[in-house]
Amino acid sequence: MSIEKKKVRVGMIGYKFMGKAHSLAYRNLPFFFDTKFVPVMQAISGRNEAGVKKAAEKMGWDSYETDWRKLIQRDDIDVIDIVTPNSTHFEMAIAAAEAGKHIICEKPLSMNVNQAKRMYEAVQKNGVIHMICHNYRFAPAVQYAKKLIDQGRLGNIRHIRGTYLQDASMDPNLPITWRAKKEITGSGALGDIGSHSLDLARFLVGEFQEVVGVMETFIKQRPIQNEGLNVQVDATKMGEVTVDDATVILARFENGAIGTFEATKFAGGNLNGNRFEINGDKGSIRWDLENLNNLDVYFADDEPGLRGFRTINCTEEIHPYAGAYWPPAHIIGYEHTFINLLSDFMNGIADGISPKPNFEDGLRNQIVLESIEKSAMQKSWVNISEISNNSLVTNLK
Amino acid sequence: MSIEKKKVRVGMIGYKFMGKAHSLAYRNLPFFFDTKFVPVMQAISGRNEAGVKKAAEKMGWDSYETDWRKLIQRDDIDVIDIVTPNSTHFEMAIAAAEAGKHIICEKPLSMNVNQAKRMYEAVQKNGVIHMICHNYRFAPAVQYAKKLIDQGRLGNIRHIRGTYLQDASMDPNLPITWRAKKEITGSGALGDIGSHSLDLARFLVGEFQEVVGVMETFIKQRPIQNEGLNVQVDATKMGEVTVDDATVILARFENGAIGTFEATKFAGGNLNGNRFEINGDKGSIRWDLENLNNLDVYFADDEPGLRGFRTINCTEEIHPYAGAYWPPAHIIGYEHTFINLLSDFMNGIADGISPKPNFEDGLRNQIVLESIEKSAMQKSWVNISEISNNSLVTNLK
Amino acid sequence: MSIEKKKVRVGMIGYKFMGKAHSLAYRNLPFFFDTKFVPVMQAISGRNEAGVKKAAEKMGWDSYETDWRKLIQRDDIDVIDIVTPNSTHFEMAIAAAEAGKHIICEKPLSMNVNQAKRMYEAVQKNGVIHMICHNYRFAPAVQYAKKLIDQGRLGNIRHIRGTYLQDASMDPNLPITWRAKKEITGSGALGDIGSHSLDLARFLVGEFQEVVGVMETFIKQRPIQNEGLNVQVDATKMGEVTVDDATVILARFENGAIGTFEATKFAGGNLNGNRFEINGDKGSIRWDLENLNNLDVYFADDEPGLRGFRTINCTEEIHPYAGAYWPPAHIIGYEHTFINLLSDFMNGIADGISPKPNFEDGLRNQIVLESIEKSAMQKSWVNISEISNNSLVTNLK
Amino acid sequence: MSIEKKKVRVGMIGYKFMGKAHSLAYRNLPFFFDTKFVPVMQAISGRNEAGVKKAAEKMGWDSYETDWRKLIQRDDIDVIDIVTPNSTHFEMAIAAAEAGKHIICEKPLSMNVNQAKRMYEAVQKNGVIHMICHNYRFAPAVQYAKKLIDQGRLGNIRHIRGTYLQDASMDPNLPITWRAKKEITGSGALGDIGSHSLDLARFLVGEFQEVVGVMETFIKQRPIQNEGLNVQVDATKMGEVTVDDATVILARFENGAIGTFEATKFAGGNLNGNRFEINGDKGSIRWDLENLNNLDVYFADDEPGLRGFRTINCTEEIHPYAGAYWPPAHIIGYEHTFINLLSDFMNGIADGISPKPNFEDGLRNQIVLESIEKSAMQKSWVNISEISNNSLVTNLK
Repeated sequence: MSIEKKKVRVGMIGYKFMGKAHSLAYRNLPFFFDTKFVPVMQAISGRNEAGVKKAAEKMGWDSYETDWRKLIQRDDIDVIDIVTPNSTHFEMAIAAAEAGKHIICEKPLSMNVNQAKRMYEAVQKNGVIHMICHNYRFAPAVQYAKKLIDQGRLGNIRHIRGTYLQDASMDPNLPITWRAKKEITGSGALGDIGSHSLDLARFLVGEFQEVVGVMETFIKQRPIQNEGLNVQVDATKMGEVTVDDATVILARFENGAIGTFEATKFAGGNLNGNRFEINGDKGSIRWDLENLNNLDVYFADDEPGLRGFRTINCTEEIHPYAGAYWPPAHIIGYEHTFINLLSDFMNGIADGISPKPNFEDGLRNQIVLESIEKSAMQKSWVNISEISNNSLVTNLK
Repeated sequence: MSIEKKKVRVGMIGYKFMGKAHSLAYRNLPFFFDTKFVPVMQAISGRNEAGVKKAAEKMGWDSYETDWRKLIQRDDIDVIDIVTPNSTHFEMAIAAAEAGKHIICEKPLSMNVNQAKRMYEAVQKNGVIHMICHNYRFAPAVQYAKKLIDQGRLGNIRHIRGTYLQDASMDPNLPITWRAKKEITGSGALGDIGSHSLDLARFLVGEFQEVVGVMETFIKQRPIQNEGLNVQVDATKMGEVTVDDATVILARFENGAIGTFEATKFAGGNLNGNRFEINGDKGSIRWDLENLNNLDVYFADDEPGLRGFRTINCTEEIHPYAGAYWPPAHIIGYEHTFINLLSDFMNGIADGISPKPNFEDGLRNQIVLESIEKSAMQKSWVNISEISNNSLVTNLK
Repeated sequence: MSIEKKKVRVGMIGYKFMGKAHSLAYRNLPFFFDTKFVPVMQAISGRNEAGVKKAAEKMGWDSYETDWRKLIQRDDIDVIDIVTPNSTHFEMAIAAAEAGKHIICEKPLSMNVNQAKRMYEAVQKNGVIHMICHNYRFAPAVQYAKKLIDQGRLGNIRHIRGTYLQDASMDPNLPITWRAKKEITGSGALGDIGSHSLDLARFLVGEFQEVVGVMETFIKQRPIQNEGLNVQVDATKMGEVTVDDATVILARFENGAIGTFEATKFAGGNLNGNRFEINGDKGSIRWDLENLNNLDVYFADDEPGLRGFRTINCTEEIHPYAGAYWPPAHIIGYEHTFINLLSDFMNGIADGISPKPNFEDGLRNQIVLESIEKSAMQKSWVNISEISNNSLVTNLK
Repeated sequence: MSIEKKKVRVGMIGYKFMGKAHSLAYRNLPFFFDTKFVPVMQAISGRNEAGVKKAAEKMGWDSYETDWRKLIQRDDIDVIDIVTPNSTHFEMAIAAAEAGKHIICEKPLSMNVNQAKRMYEAVQKNGVIHMICHNYRFAPAVQYAKKLIDQGRLGNIRHIRGTYLQDASMDPNLPITWRAKKEITGSGALGDIGSHSLDLARFLVGEFQEVVGVMETFIKQRPIQNEGLNVQVDATKMGEVTVDDATVILARFENGAIGTFEATKFAGGNLNGNRFEINGDKGSIRWDLENLNNLDVYFADDEPGLRGFRTINCTEEIHPYAGAYWPPAHIIGYEHTFINLLSDFMNGIADGISPKPNFEDGLRNQIVLESIEKSAMQKSWVNISEISNNSLVTNLK
């Protein structure tokens, strides 16, 4: 008779795009992975009762709340999962930590370094397990890239060029949403998608040392969205776009590598171009989210005449997380990155260790983001320490 | 208050690779699709009690049986899903049809045309809904290709070249499994993977008229697998491989198109290369399962100077089934083809119509397979009608 | 002081597309290669005096003739290069051989096996050096592929799939040219482009054993071309197309490999798709004329986890012929295949050896072509020996 | 009777890699193009008599000099072509202009803006025709890109990301050559390859406004090369590398576009990765020198569902310069970019107009280079006007 595994009861705040992705991951985790603890989809919360009720039914949550504070106070909840807009993360995470709940939080961690620092302090002080949802680390190809780098297969890293190219904002008639308002989202392309590239760089290359960036808003005014879905462009009702449409960055890393980064929503033809190439003095790797199962790998010491990038389909047992799924080259998709992340989270709760990326990574990412914002505003290079020291984040190694 | 949807109670026979794929699809269908009826994962059956019990728990089935006949007889089962080796499909499907159960059956439908014909007659006679699991039709890119062809965007079809290239059998020390024995599986590469290419050709191009093929077994003897997993090559215990390692085919279609097909497990470097290109006199399309979200499309009447294959990422609302998932270019994977297929199946049960591909398609596919086998044995061209007429399949148009 | 190299005086019959390619190659050979003998562009011949005179000036030939027989008889000519339509090769090559001239001849060698046999006998009897212009063998990537195969890096060859896909004939209003008339050209897509694929197969895989093919003419009537260039479609002046628009082929090779081939001018979007993939039990290679500098290579014994096709840019010194050109990845193009071929030809004349591919290869290729034509006419498999024995080509090893 | 075309007698200074490329282009220009004037390969000069004599013979030059000043003074020379190291361009170009010779000069134009300005003034004052050899502008795909942009097909340009990635300097045992010495070459990766990317940006996007860059030397000391070719690493004989191994750049353009650029010789696996992507609000283009015949094009207003990058093989008559060569998809290579450039140069001499890119472009490029160098040294943004105004380049619009 099999011993029942410990169940971890999850309460999720929010239920839109990210809520859907997280929900599916909780739902499918036990199907694919044999984690130490297993999640139970206990409750979600949202302000609109009709909406949250319907979402709970559709996605398979047992109950719902219309007040996130109530959700956090429930005794039958072990984990709080935060998938709401960025401006809300701070208050929720602090409350959850103080209620002793483990926390998983969407990225970027918060609105600024100060918030992020206090969130990190709260989870440490309250001894809860925490993760930040930089899910792209969890593509098997990316994990495999990390393994190759850690094994020294690429040698000393010289370059990273990371781009996150989308084209969703090119239409000037597209109305303003919360993602266009700095007070809700912090930044635009930079925080929304660029933060993923920066996290992948920290994961694979190491810590940033200094940055210089340009943040650009190509379309400075957009129609204000009416309540309903039928948006009519009305020139008399235009609103200011207060975030960046695109950000480009140069960076130096502590280990001497140099990097270029670009996050934009104006790269026509690029739907979800989260890509990077890393060059070391022994080899190189390339990855593209749009073909997320593949990793291109080059070794400088391959046999002469036979050197070239090889395309690895990272769907074999040997590739991290891939064995849990299907036979080789029966590809997995976007959603599986969340399942892989959650498998680490469940094991982390069992082991009492906060897996990477956690709130420390969230804070470090926030420091890079804020350094870039400062750099763009000042039109100058900014050393990461300017932000991290000012913020008294002294316990980061 | 929402009216409860009708629940369709599924019983699945078998639980290995295909069982896992079907189980996940039942599990996730309601999460993504708003089908008219919804599936309930009622029971699975398997001969090994420990194995089937564990599988049921892991994959989320409510109960299990160790005798598939019992499963079929249960009153609380509406659908029988057959995911066992090919030699067993016939008996199970006949029994299920006679018990009035709707049926979904893995491909190829059966061991030969005679069985397939009787299976098709059984589902018709008993008025049950039936499908065959040629899941690759349900990649959004493939469905979109079908739509373009039906709209005449490719004009008259001239060519199809379909390949299904794998490399899993290249190692001569690989032991014999049921997939190497003709009496259990019918054929090797031809039935296992080639049947998918042939089904896609029927779906997209039309009916076959005549075929000529070569079936080749490169490694004619392989080690016999011991009970345990530790296979040691033992030259004194070699068994005959009685199926094809590779099959190549020429074909003429009723509409005048000509085709080449190849199914092989000896194409090193090709893990799951289910690919096709179709050329019409107005345009062309290309698809590759290893990047299943993409469709390459060429139009002969594009602006001069700007003609070339364009790569469409079929993840937008406009692409069939894709709207149920994630924002554009958040790619889906292998498993989602089954979910899409099941959404049609559930709606088909609600509407009383057997969606395509159904047992008629299974029978037609079997006729093509048997024509190829006959052609390879005789070393001659075989007209499809030789097989279909001999088999008295007279009600096929 | 450098010793003057022996000059080989070339006379070329014809001066259109192939004449231009050959002319450029003679012109540039000494620039890139240090061959033992060097060519002199002595004379060309053509029936239209204005045309041939202008071509000679433009392309750098020293003189011209309007009668090819005079060209062959000139004492100041060492080599006859035949770039005229296929129906003329036989008479010209026989005359050139009898006049003791070395010969380079465009492909296919002739109209049928009987002619090819007599041409081969003539060059042997007269002791002249001979080559056939299957120039695609001379892409550095293809030569490197050959080297890898000869070194056993691919192991036993199991599969070849060769396609030559073009789309130049899709427009039904395209007028009839000599390439559409069987009496001038022998066959259509098969001889014009398919013969290249078949030659590459012989070069890389080995000799054919048996074939079965389909030859299809999709557009059976086309407008007759008026004298001038302004073609008006005139339904009252339609001519019969007497050659194939497309040919598809299955083949068995003497070494047990099996192949599929397709030559078509109806594959929309494929401008010059001369491609092949070869799978052995230790590795695979892929090549595409449209990116002719690249070779994709896969090794089955690469490190686990790191297996995948690598893309080799065959422009390094280590790659055959590539060292004569530019630094790595400064790519060469179509025309350089002819220069490489001519470098072998010049050295062959110096050494008294006919380099491969020569008239023996032309004859063997013709045997395969004729076997395919017979197979398509009879709708049956044809063993290569049926044609080669009938033709009394007994001295082929 | 055809009227003899005017012959333009060329004298080239230098004969190594670039000399070979230019020589071949002169040699082949009349073969492919019907230019107004035609070049004659009159003489080359080089200091080593044996070397220059051999080069002249091999490449087809009629005579040679060992003193470039003599070459410039020769009456039978109309054009001076400068293909020597960068530090020599200034003196040669000034002398040639003063001698009334037309000039074609390799890039970058000179060592600094001051030299470039004086060179530009000299050619203007002396009324000679001048070009700078940014040959990559002359790939048909790049010219076609320019045409699409000029037609407004891409709309307002938002982004350019240009990389020139090579891996030739990764080996730390590679000895020092003139390319590693600032006093001879000006800069390293930036001037050698980055200058091409920057020129393409100016050609396709427009003028730079401000830049910020990092110039990095990863390997700061390298073995000193002995006279002979057998380099032995000798730790006691190390020399300083005084130029950049890699440079990364952010840029703003006058028209509001933003750009990222990277030039490096440490990007393993990238042999000659001169690539760019440009995004406008109506469309995008991508190009890669390693497949230089192709242009990827995306139009935002393509039919919904059918949007995606299309790959155009720019080898049709409609594509600039391509009609001079071969039938569609019979690809051309690196060397043809020089032939295309020379066809403009010959026509320019006939018409009395200096075609683009000319010394003005060389000067403007130099201003960008110097701005980047200043920016890297100062670790700050630099406005292009800081350099151009300081240099009193007042006649640039």
